[in-house]
Amino acid sequence: MTKSDNSPIHASTLLNRTGQGRHFLQIPGPSNTPDRVLRAIDFPTIDHRGPEFANLGLRILQAIKPVFGTTNPVIIYPGSGTGAWEAAMVNTLSPGDRVLMVETGQFATQWKNLAQKLQLQPEFISGDWRTGVNPADIHARLAADPEREIKAVCVVHNETSTGVTSDIASVRAAMDAAKHPALLMVDTISGIGSIAYAHDQWGVDVTIAGSQKGLMLPPGLGFNAISDKAIEASKHAKLPNAYWRWDEIIAANRNGYWPTTPATNLLYGLAEALDMLHEEGLHNVFERHQRHAQATRLAVQAWGLEILCTNPDQYSPVLTAVVMPKRADGTYYDADAFRKLVLGRYNMSLGTGLNKLQGWVFRIGHLGHFNDLMLIGTLGGVEMGLAAAGVPHQRGGVQAAIDYLAKS
Amino acid sequence: MTKSDNSPIHASTLLNRTGQGRHFLQIPGPSNTPDRVLRAIDFPTIDHRGPEFANLGLRILQAIKPVFGTTNPVIIYPGSGTGAWEAAMVNTLSPGDRVLMVETGQFATQWKNLAQKLQLQPEFISGDWRTGVNPADIHARLAADPEREIKAVCVVHNETSTGVTSDIASVRAAMDAAKHPALLMVDTISGIGSIAYAHDQWGVDVTIAGSQKGLMLPPGLGFNAISDKAIEASKHAKLPNAYWRWDEIIAANRNGYWPTTPATNLLYGLAEALDMLHEEGLHNVFERHQRHAQATRLAVQAWGLEILCTNPDQYSPVLTAVVMPKRADGTYYDADAFRKLVLGRYNMSLGTGLNKLQGWVFRIGHLGHFNDLMLIGTLGGVEMGLAAAGVPHQRGGVQAAIDYLAKS
Amino acid sequence: MTKSDNSPIHASTLLNRTGQGRHFLQIPGPSNTPDRVLRAIDFPTIDHRGPEFANLGLRILQAIKPVFGTTNPVIIYPGSGTGAWEAAMVNTLSPGDRVLMVETGQFATQWKNLAQKLQLQPEFISGDWRTGVNPADIHARLAADPEREIKAVCVVHNETSTGVTSDIASVRAAMDAAKHPALLMVDTISGIGSIAYAHDQWGVDVTIAGSQKGLMLPPGLGFNAISDKAIEASKHAKLPNAYWRWDEIIAANRNGYWPTTPATNLLYGLAEALDMLHEEGLHNVFERHQRHAQATRLAVQAWGLEILCTNPDQYSPVLTAVVMPKRADGTYYDADAFRKLVLGRYNMSLGTGLNKLQGWVFRIGHLGHFNDLMLIGTLGGVEMGLAAAGVPHQRGGVQAAIDYLAKS
Amino acid sequence: MTKSDNSPIHASTLLNRTGQGRHFLQIPGPSNTPDRVLRAIDFPTIDHRGPEFANLGLRILQAIKPVFGTTNPVIIYPGSGTGAWEAAMVNTLSPGDRVLMVETGQFATQWKNLAQKLQLQPEFISGDWRTGVNPADIHARLAADPEREIKAVCVVHNETSTGVTSDIASVRAAMDAAKHPALLMVDTISGIGSIAYAHDQWGVDVTIAGSQKGLMLPPGLGFNAISDKAIEASKHAKLPNAYWRWDEIIAANRNGYWPTTPATNLLYGLAEALDMLHEEGLHNVFERHQRHAQATRLAVQAWGLEILCTNPDQYSPVLTAVVMPKRADGTYYDADAFRKLVLGRYNMSLGTGLNKLQGWVFRIGHLGHFNDLMLIGTLGGVEMGLAAAGVPHQRGGVQAAIDYLAKS
Repeated sequence: MTKSDNSPIHASTLLNRTGQGRHFLQIPGPSNTPDRVLRAIDFPTIDHRGPEFANLGLRILQAIKPVFGTTNPVIIYPGSGTGAWEAAMVNTLSPGDRVLMVETGQFATQWKNLAQKLQLQPEFISGDWRTGVNPADIHARLAADPEREIKAVCVVHNETSTGVTSDIASVRAAMDAAKHPALLMVDTISGIGSIAYAHDQWGVDVTIAGSQKGLMLPPGLGFNAISDKAIEASKHAKLPNAYWRWDEIIAANRNGYWPTTPATNLLYGLAEALDMLHEEGLHNVFERHQRHAQATRLAVQAWGLEILCTNPDQYSPVLTAVVMPKRADGTYYDADAFRKLVLGRYNMSLGTGLNKLQGWVFRIGHLGHFNDLMLIGTLGGVEMGLAAAGVPHQRGGVQAAIDYLAKS
Repeated sequence: MTKSDNSPIHASTLLNRTGQGRHFLQIPGPSNTPDRVLRAIDFPTIDHRGPEFANLGLRILQAIKPVFGTTNPVIIYPGSGTGAWEAAMVNTLSPGDRVLMVETGQFATQWKNLAQKLQLQPEFISGDWRTGVNPADIHARLAADPEREIKAVCVVHNETSTGVTSDIASVRAAMDAAKHPALLMVDTISGIGSIAYAHDQWGVDVTIAGSQKGLMLPPGLGFNAISDKAIEASKHAKLPNAYWRWDEIIAANRNGYWPTTPATNLLYGLAEALDMLHEEGLHNVFERHQRHAQATRLAVQAWGLEILCTNPDQYSPVLTAVVMPKRADGTYYDADAFRKLVLGRYNMSLGTGLNKLQGWVFRIGHLGHFNDLMLIGTLGGVEMGLAAAGVPHQRGGVQAAIDYLAKS
Repeated sequence: MTKSDNSPIHASTLLNRTGQGRHFLQIPGPSNTPDRVLRAIDFPTIDHRGPEFANLGLRILQAIKPVFGTTNPVIIYPGSGTGAWEAAMVNTLSPGDRVLMVETGQFATQWKNLAQKLQLQPEFISGDWRTGVNPADIHARLAADPEREIKAVCVVHNETSTGVTSDIASVRAAMDAAKHPALLMVDTISGIGSIAYAHDQWGVDVTIAGSQKGLMLPPGLGFNAISDKAIEASKHAKLPNAYWRWDEIIAANRNGYWPTTPATNLLYGLAEALDMLHEEGLHNVFERHQRHAQATRLAVQAWGLEILCTNPDQYSPVLTAVVMPKRADGTYYDADAFRKLVLGRYNMSLGTGLNKLQGWVFRIGHLGHFNDLMLIGTLGGVEMGLAAAGVPHQRGGVQAAIDYLAKS
Repeated sequence: MTKSDNSPIHASTLLNRTGQGRHFLQIPGPSNTPDRVLRAIDFPTIDHRGPEFANLGLRILQAIKPVFGTTNPVIIYPGSGTGAWEAAMVNTLSPGDRVLMVETGQFATQWKNLAQKLQLQPEFISGDWRTGVNPADIHARLAADPEREIKAVCVVHNETSTGVTSDIASVRAAMDAAKHPALLMVDTISGIGSIAYAHDQWGVDVTIAGSQKGLMLPPGLGFNAISDKAIEASKHAKLPNAYWRWDEIIAANRNGYWPTTPATNLLYGLAEALDMLHEEGLHNVFERHQRHAQATRLAVQAWGLEILCTNPDQYSPVLTAVVMPKRADGTYYDADAFRKLVLGRYNMSLGTGLNKLQGWVFRIGHLGHFNDLMLIGTLGGVEMGLAAAGVPHQRGGVQAAIDYLAKS
């Protein structure tokens, strides 16, 4: 900090300082916030108990359902995705409950840690952080639980730390095959609004989401989509809970209100973001993400770099995690030094490798309010950064992406 | 809803429809959001793991301390004030813990209900919703707790439902006189940034606050200021908790970051709001609130109406709750019909009477980004509304306020 | 300037510094800019030759016509009202042309001065700056012009310096009675969007307007509404002109474009402002202005102060100019010292007395994005300012306004 | 227009519809408006006669001088660049005055047409629209004017229609060599803020500029920088003029004000833009433009396309005009069909070929708030568009740019 403590902060001047022109926010969330959403958020706060608010609330609560693929309630919290994880669990589970979770990466691990802090007993099926959930593992474990001690199966739909997706319908099929009554909880924090999602059809009981990824909002809202079975479970769950309680929210939502103070201005932004998603058409939104992900992978391959996700069926449409090449001595070129250089020189933020991926993996976000030319600029920044950082690679990644995009 | 479900929501056009000109948001929070704060919130979201963010975070975390009167950490959550209540309790208490609370009004009651939902055992000293905490009651109860079963005393500093303040220093003195080790928790959700507050000097252990009142932000941030004793308690507390955990936040805050995704754009707004408070000077801010409250009370008295708060030492600088007059048959003129008329005709939102105050009390907020002329307009709207609604009163309330303001 | 020359300007922090809360911008224009308009202006500039722009342009050019009461073209310039004055003259007149103008106040005088600078020969019917145009004067002069040397009659509809309106239909009737072919040019810079206006029905040839008054925009746009006769005159006029030429603009406007670069972002704001005017209904807008003007005059009268306009039929719905009382020695109390005090203490800008009105007249704007409570705050600021400045007056002006507004 | 005339316009929803993600506004002005500038413009309008405004005005008028390379006054108008052309001429010239102009392209031609409309007698040195001003031509013509009938030499510094610059210092040298007293007027509408400019050092008498290019603002402001000699000339000039008069503006500017209503909100934006330019450093700004222009030309050359500008010394740092290839039958591939495709498919606006360049030339803007990744996205859009439109070219233009940018 070069400024003295008493000088004003001037948030606006802290921003956009790393270079001229638009910042490229290519972390896998928060994503680039659209002008329309920001301008909506910029409107004066209104009375959250007044008639205008009710109109807004009812419209949002209706318009968000198709994004989750549900006709059931979607709960919206002031809070982050972490809060929405907690909400899913404290509404439905009791202390000591066993939950089956799968180590797909850092966020699955953090969710498992959260379950432990909440005094649940997570069983964590280990994973290699390069593949998604194996439904056979779920089936095997549930089949070996004749006492039905496992109360919930918790999986991450789009693992933000690895760029690997998991097939939720198959997880449900495995649970059904095992005739196991556990709840199915799915974190699609970084998938919602970017990847087709079918809460009802897939038989998910609680879907957890956040605002700052495919929903194109700043962070600050968490979501739970819930099944009738989850609602029923919430009536008997014993974990202490108050702020996150669904019942009071569902009741108040019927009239477009919330029982406690909602994050009004972020809801303005959500209304605008939902307008934008429906204007484009959800199907088109999801196709767009697939197309940009494929172009990104072609670029990575052209550079001669490795994609962290080892199963092409599980490639994420939202982000691509890239493995740095190794030096002759077997050590990796430093992913974070590379990222720092890209930020300082090209005004682009890339995602770091988290936890055990740190230092040898970086992540490219290609989600949300995004288009072909933003992607080309993004990949150009990566290619220039590799060159500037002296990371061995082949030129031509951007060209490969352009060739693909121009044809599709 | 007159629009079909498929039509766009257009948040901007839902707003400001009840009339022309600026809306007067005179509920006791959310308060009128300043243009500078809204424009700050309108900036694109940045990487919450990048260097610009750290600079922002460190500046905010430093600048907010004097507002709470503390040199200890202030925890900032994505969440509402209700969440901050929960945070205070789950960090420091264990299931079944006895907590002493005081029924100063609706928010004290809701906090007590929250404690119950969290499986604590609140003892609720009953109150008349027209006066603040009686420190003698606290002393008496603590003195009668030789086993030290009471783990916390929880009081509301500025009861938003009644316009009554409580003297926190006296509560602390009563606790000290009883030599009782209970934690002191204070809700100043609607007091922070509007009323002088001295977390450290008053010996408060956890102070709970929110963003949408004197801090002049939209709702969406909750705050805990914490003492060393509270931090120590958090190491032994047994209530399950994860999202609200102080320890991880304190650790990450040292470098200007948060362990989970912070509400970046609301933090931009907080930076700007803190600039504004420090530019005006906290002392001046508090004086301004006192002055506007006094002018409001003079208006209410001139109208011949009754102020809900019966103890002048406990008048709130933030809001004034007003009792509707009674008809000959002993029933009250309808406060909510009056409020609805004021909203529809004069484009001003007033606060409703909550719970047992419903129908016979309304509340005037005079807090946050506010000045003499906004207050005069506000009181003018009340006086015109009383006339239009046929509520018996004497003219001249606005005049009384003007006379006072012009002289002071 | 306390800052050094090399320090950043930080426009946002220069603003809203004279006090807390909203500034009351009660000069007779620029008026208080609505949030919706400001947010519209805040959108990124687009290609003014692209299809989105054409859509915007066509919609604006259509929606603005009813505001002027015309089905003919309305020309929109990047420029101020002064520019629109010049545009009206250079399109239709030739060097040395005689034009008949009426000294209704400072803006009529400035327009006359502009005509001289443009090498026209204005004849200026003298006036007392307290009354509007006398149609009989027009008739008399035109009747005495058998050679038809007078090429245009130029009058101000709403004289911003005095708060006096003139009856345009009567001016036209006087011209018709004299069977004189002169063009009728009307400045309604501060009337448009606030006072009913009928360009076609009243037989006006060129109407001059600006953006920053009843149209609720920032300054930066000028307008000419034009009759077929004016268009015909423009084909033969000899004053050099290029930037202001109607013909090229009319041609380009047919497709929604402009021949030179339009002020795109102000046009965004104009689109939003036109939406707002049509949503409220033009008739309601005009009624609202009448009502607020009447309330203001009642306040002025209650204070025992004199309204500058001496003819009640000519009171302006847009602003009220107030005469300061005299001291025993016959000098006026200082209007500008009073205004300065009001700005510094109550965060309200009032209009100064211009030219020969300076020092003894001030002006209250009550136009644009305005409502009852803003007016009451405004009048409260005047009443407090009178008291604080020691200006002799009677209390009760605000009360008189409230009583009137509550009943109407 | 698909909407009915009575439906609201909703400017915000008209925008950003051609595709998802950020629009790439790569016409050679208006350029991409920075978030900081837009947010500054979004602040409420203030009293342009009040003390806050004076502070703003003084700061702007000081901070803009180095951008023009002058210590003399810079005049700022509400208006477009066309208006600033007119201002330069009507302040300094008299009807029938001979002015020497050079046909460097469409804007030079339009300026010449404007001079004719203003009743001047332009002599137009013909040009091929592919090269800049030849100082020898200027010298020859002035040398052949012993009567000093030529009152001004008018040249375009950066011809926006062709991407060709002219060397202003050499033009001045040619005039000096001819010992001719004509004024030197320079249009740098699209150069200011992007190309180093030295009004004083180069001996320019009137420099004409606009807001929407290198100054990074929306359109709506025009500029004249003026020499003492130009001011002296303005005292004797005979062209009718009023709105554009320098003398009254210079006088009012001394105190930070304007004689007529300034475009307040655009001035907020100008203050912020000047902050940004000075923060980056003008030298760095100019270097950045040079670098991006070079990268663009390398891309064009790699595609095998022709740059319109035939003299490498005159390449523009602001834009690059590109010649479409010819078909076997000698006709050009359609530049406008290509542009339309790029807009519809890739959400990027490119500049059209103007006048005689129409249909066979398109222009790429690389100016203002711009950076490497935006440029790579831009060039990617061109390369994909060429492929999609079936325009013969070689792949690899983006790659060439990346290779250059990565090294420099």
